[in-house]
Amino acid sequence: MSTSTFGCQSLRFSPRGRLFASKNSVSRKYRCNATFASMSESGKDLSLPMKVETLLDSIKWDDKGLAVAIAQNVDTGAILMQGFVNKEAIATTVSQRKATFYSRSRSQLWTKGETSNNFINIHDIFLDCDRDSIIYLGKPVGPTCHTGAETCYYTSLDDSINQQDAKDKLALSTLYSLESTISERKAEIEAPQNGKPSWTKRLLLDNNLLCSKIREEADELCRTLEENEDKSRAASEMADVLYHAMVLLAVKGVEMEDVLQILRQRFSQSGIEEKKSRVPKS
Amino acid sequence: MSTSTFGCQSLRFSPRGRLFASKNSVSRKYRCNATFASMSESGKDLSLPMKVETLLDSIKWDDKGLAVAIAQNVDTGAILMQGFVNKEAIATTVSQRKATFYSRSRSQLWTKGETSNNFINIHDIFLDCDRDSIIYLGKPVGPTCHTGAETCYYTSLDDSINQQDAKDKLALSTLYSLESTISERKAEIEAPQNGKPSWTKRLLLDNNLLCSKIREEADELCRTLEENEDKSRAASEMADVLYHAMVLLAVKGVEMEDVLQILRQRFSQSGIEEKKSRVPKS
Repeated sequence: MSTSTFGCQSLRFSPRGRLFASKNSVSRKYRCNATFASMSESGKDLSLPMKVETLLDSIKWDDKGLAVAIAQNVDTGAILMQGFVNKEAIATTVSQRKATFYSRSRSQLWTKGETSNNFINIHDIFLDCDRDSIIYLGKPVGPTCHTGAETCYYTSLDDSINQQDAKDKLALSTLYSLESTISERKAEIEAPQNGKPSWTKRLLLDNNLLCSKIREEADELCRTLEENEDKSRAASEMADVLYHAMVLLAVKGVEMEDVLQILRQRFSQSGIEEKKSRVPKS
Repeated sequence: MSTSTFGCQSLRFSPRGRLFASKNSVSRKYRCNATFASMSESGKDLSLPMKVETLLDSIKWDDKGLAVAIAQNVDTGAILMQGFVNKEAIATTVSQRKATFYSRSRSQLWTKGETSNNFINIHDIFLDCDRDSIIYLGKPVGPTCHTGAETCYYTSLDDSINQQDAKDKLALSTLYSLESTISERKAEIEAPQNGKPSWTKRLLLDNNLLCSKIREEADELCRTLEENEDKSRAASEMADVLYHAMVLLAVKGVEMEDVLQILRQRFSQSGIEEKKSRVPKS
């Protein structure tokens, strides 16, 4: 069972969501215990800074003491799954850095991956303006869905309405939708009946053509700056660079997510996030 | 008030979320009315195909008849906001192609943007494996949050815990986090005290250096294919291409979202989505 010391004076929030506290409210706050002392169901000490307690107190829990939590892939932006959280679930996530939810059917905490090992390692947690919805921004280890799908969202309502026999299709934002299309073209080439001709297929089959296009498009992007062309021209040339470079990635068998992970690791200011997200040694 | 003919036999779903129906269930289904006839609160006829009705019947509504709906930017993957939906909210969204929710506080439907004109034009709707959570994949017109923020998620729990005076920071996936960092460096250059030196700032200030780097990195990416270098090298070179090209976009004042919108419009297979997402003439 869990014990906690929730219930201290909350910090208040401005309409823009910035923390602020009057001298009075701060002094009241610090008369509470200085740490959030909680034991998880597994008996782990979840002591957390006072600030976490005050932040959790600011959340507008529903009549069951729950809020919505959405797990999102930090590199791709894909929505992985959605669950519900209570205070202890968030406190556990903050201290253990693994996305943890409250199961309404089993009336208990559950850490995504506790049976499958497909954890979602947390990079940051965001609250919304209304304080009743949370994003777990994290990096999934393996597929998130219990079906083995990368995310739980693979049923398109539009496809189901418009097509007699709609196939599963992940909810993808544009970059990954394009990556998926290129990947389909590659699969068509490798299939016995290789479908309709397409520019993507030509590029996939001709490394010389592909590389000459990448160099040409990079040059054209540069010339939008050197020759002071307008913004729309720069956006269009960048689209060309991205597309052709993504065809090369498909030929090499590299995913955009791998590229973005490299960028994140290079540009994370402190490397602290990366360390926090690592699986702790047992 | 709304009237509807919900309640026909639902299609069943396989564990992978694919629709299937026995002959019996299909024949029972078609004994129901062939269309979902509903009048919205505004008196608009929301007649929808039978398939929508059966899909909506498959959703596991909670004890209040609601499910979670998450609005996501189709181009950037950013989670814009989260609300709740009932059957009529989804039916309205399907027919009107604007993200529509059910307000629990006001006990009525509301279409995001109905007062602000900041609509979210729908490109597709996804159901999750459990059928109790929905993604509205759409293109926002203007900022989504009532505070004027681009999304409702701008309070980082980690920042609030670790920093005395944490600033608002949007929940961004890696590409947009990098874009934001480049944008900050640009702002620092333009500020009176222009902060610490950085490679990004050097590139922002020197078009010749920037363009020579873009051409060089594009060439190195090509050589990973031409010289059969390993996958990790290709991913690393692509990261270089992306970063340097994004610095050029910052110099030109172009956002990645604009680039992705161009890619989406070029590669959407039918153009149907784009047409559907346009604001209908009144």
